[in-house]
Amino acid sequence: MPDNRERAVDFLETRRDGNIELLREFLALPSVSTETEHRGDIDRTAYWLKERLIALGASDAAVYPTAGMPVVCGTIEAAGNKSVTLLVYGHYDVQPVDPLDLWESDPFSGKISGDHLFARGASDMKGQIIAVLAAIEAAQQNGGLPINIRFLLEGEEEIGSPNLKEFIRTHGDLLRADCCLNPDAGMIAPDRPSICYALRGLAYFELRVQGPAMDLHSGIFGGAVHNPAQVLCDLLSGMHDTAGRVTLPGFYDDVAGLGAEERSELARLGMDDRYFLQQTGVPALWGEEGYTALERTGARPTLEINGLLSGFTGTGSKTVLPAEAMAKISMRLVPNQDPKEMRSKLERYIEARVPKTVTWQLDQFAAGPPVFSERTSKENRAFAKALETVWGVPPIFKREGGSIPVATYLSELLGMPSVLTGFGLPEDHIHSPNERLHLPTWHRGTKAVAHFFYNLS
Amino acid sequence: MPDNRERAVDFLETRRDGNIELLREFLALPSVSTETEHRGDIDRTAYWLKERLIALGASDAAVYPTAGMPVVCGTIEAAGNKSVTLLVYGHYDVQPVDPLDLWESDPFSGKISGDHLFARGASDMKGQIIAVLAAIEAAQQNGGLPINIRFLLEGEEEIGSPNLKEFIRTHGDLLRADCCLNPDAGMIAPDRPSICYALRGLAYFELRVQGPAMDLHSGIFGGAVHNPAQVLCDLLSGMHDTAGRVTLPGFYDDVAGLGAEERSELARLGMDDRYFLQQTGVPALWGEEGYTALERTGARPTLEINGLLSGFTGTGSKTVLPAEAMAKISMRLVPNQDPKEMRSKLERYIEARVPKTVTWQLDQFAAGPPVFSERTSKENRAFAKALETVWGVPPIFKREGGSIPVATYLSELLGMPSVLTGFGLPEDHIHSPNERLHLPTWHRGTKAVAHFFYNLS
Repeated sequence: MPDNRERAVDFLETRRDGNIELLREFLALPSVSTETEHRGDIDRTAYWLKERLIALGASDAAVYPTAGMPVVCGTIEAAGNKSVTLLVYGHYDVQPVDPLDLWESDPFSGKISGDHLFARGASDMKGQIIAVLAAIEAAQQNGGLPINIRFLLEGEEEIGSPNLKEFIRTHGDLLRADCCLNPDAGMIAPDRPSICYALRGLAYFELRVQGPAMDLHSGIFGGAVHNPAQVLCDLLSGMHDTAGRVTLPGFYDDVAGLGAEERSELARLGMDDRYFLQQTGVPALWGEEGYTALERTGARPTLEINGLLSGFTGTGSKTVLPAEAMAKISMRLVPNQDPKEMRSKLERYIEARVPKTVTWQLDQFAAGPPVFSERTSKENRAFAKALETVWGVPPIFKREGGSIPVATYLSELLGMPSVLTGFGLPEDHIHSPNERLHLPTWHRGTKAVAHFFYNLS
Repeated sequence: MPDNRERAVDFLETRRDGNIELLREFLALPSVSTETEHRGDIDRTAYWLKERLIALGASDAAVYPTAGMPVVCGTIEAAGNKSVTLLVYGHYDVQPVDPLDLWESDPFSGKISGDHLFARGASDMKGQIIAVLAAIEAAQQNGGLPINIRFLLEGEEEIGSPNLKEFIRTHGDLLRADCCLNPDAGMIAPDRPSICYALRGLAYFELRVQGPAMDLHSGIFGGAVHNPAQVLCDLLSGMHDTAGRVTLPGFYDDVAGLGAEERSELARLGMDDRYFLQQTGVPALWGEEGYTALERTGARPTLEINGLLSGFTGTGSKTVLPAEAMAKISMRLVPNQDPKEMRSKLERYIEARVPKTVTWQLDQFAAGPPVFSERTSKENRAFAKALETVWGVPPIFKREGGSIPVATYLSELLGMPSVLTGFGLPEDHIHSPNERLHLPTWHRGTKAVAHFFYNLS
């Protein structure tokens, strides 16, 4: 006689079309967070989700207002105090559909063609949310959920989650769980499931160098005054050595090393130099000596100039000796670097090098720590086993160079690890016309999530 | 019995008030070249000047159209073929008057208060033009002009003389003369007349460094791609050494040295470090070792960053790895540097240093050679003697760091030297509200110009 797990998975097989219809209902709601005319649609979508959570037994499900778009939370107390509690993260907002004329079907109709369902948000990430809801229903209908589940469904991810950190800070009790499932991180190819176990942190700065009291005539004063743009270039140029390493004293002090086993696991991703050349269009790659491009972007800290501005930047010529020069500078951080300490490292570098001919000012705009979870953590192992059960191959563990703000906030504020995964594919055209969901992959995903519940319990 | 010269100078004494009234008539014409609504005023001013030249005997005086504002030319054939011919340069256009509410009198009324006449253009340079016309009249009324005089009066100096070079190129016959008197260069103080004998040349470039095909996410690609802003900073930073010298190979090869006598003459100007600190508001001066600030700006070539632009430059943070970075770079040149050769020196520097990870492009926007006339040239001696006769002290010979386009064009196209002088003062508020003319200095100036005519003959 099949056990609950097997029955739940079978149930998902028979519910496939029903789950697709539920997804199409969700996709028909144009919850575009970037456009004010969709504010009403955002609210309708949040209440639609609240009803779904109530239907799944989250009797406390509610729509929580924020300074921006509302957050939907709820709890399914299914397995008692002693059981594992999982927080499911999702965002119900979507990108705008422009340019509309490039869509081959109505972006909110959820047209199905072959193996694909076409709609804005199909892959990013309404499809991922429905995959989790489908797995919950399947377990409930077949002996009951083996774990407790909570929800954190926001409506501002596509505009940078400006109110999420504050919401998490002030609603810790609503969200308390053993770990978070975040299915917004995608996979590499239909046959290559993956789990992301490391995200880089971010420290972002603006450096201003001030010289003369006002812009000067470069003919009259050029040669007697230290040009602040030149001083800025000297400072920025000195921040890397010829081996591509950052020269700020102590920059690498706290960096966790990369072991041989981990390096070989990363190499399995197949993201080689050719991949990076193709993605970026540069004539040649560059970076810290001794590391592959993938290691440089995923496992090594870096420092970038994000912007430069000084003097005259229009068409033609103007002979100005600028009063000021500005650079935006950011660092991507890896375990165990602290974004707050990075500020003083940068300050000490500048203090040691800046000449007396100028004054300077440093402002910090972001300070997010890196996110890292051991590949062998309970939740990563539980999800990896689920993926291997469904796909027949072990997932690839990857590191990513960017950051996922919610993972940072949950880690920082609640000490909660996240399983960063999902069933979106690189060719899903997210944020572009004709966004689509590969239904066979998504359907496998619903089963993997169900297995995860049982593996976690 | 007084000779012609003495009688002419006495005549100027008695004509003082009449000349001021003529100047006020000129100043009442709002010939603002930067504002299209004053286009009619520009034309009226040009025709007003033409009438003045005809009244002084330039029967061929005419208004010449250009692609922009017209040029007024004319010839007074007073002294025959064998005599010296002087070209008088002037510009009849003026700066805008904004902000109008900071003016204490109508900027076109020519209000007189104490020793000053207040009006837009009073010092820059309608007053200077009237000083020359007054001296011509004085000579004509007292035995006749001892030289021939031609005029080149443009209406676009305040917008950079965009059509003047072409005009001079195509009207050489109209302008042919032994030397040019350009009274747009001012003096240092009411008791310190001066002649400028050297102007720096200009070579102006835009350098673009291109990296990836489009702006990238600095988290995803930072560390694997050479940031073009970083490459640009490396290139720019390397253009100076720690002694403040330009490192471009061969940059100083053709530079004419500065002798001890000339250095001590320049030192007499009294423009010391304190002067430059006060003028610029920098915490400390900077520049090429072994030279004073005045020598650095007047007699040494320099290289400046005039502008920088790359990536994100708005408020806050955006984690972009820019596709491109741009710098505006200019060189101020001294005898005997060639602005065209400077381009290849810059190109060779870049070629030797630029990495294979980027591509680059260099455009040139200006290439003006330096202007230099010996302090002992016939015309400089003639004007110096005139100044000493009127002021009782020898003038100071100075070098200037900027350029005066017309002096460059006359030198380049017609081989004509210019006497760069004038009776405007640093405290005249040119280009600012309440521009004024110091009438006692200006009146002395009318006499000095008359003496110059006789000294030159």
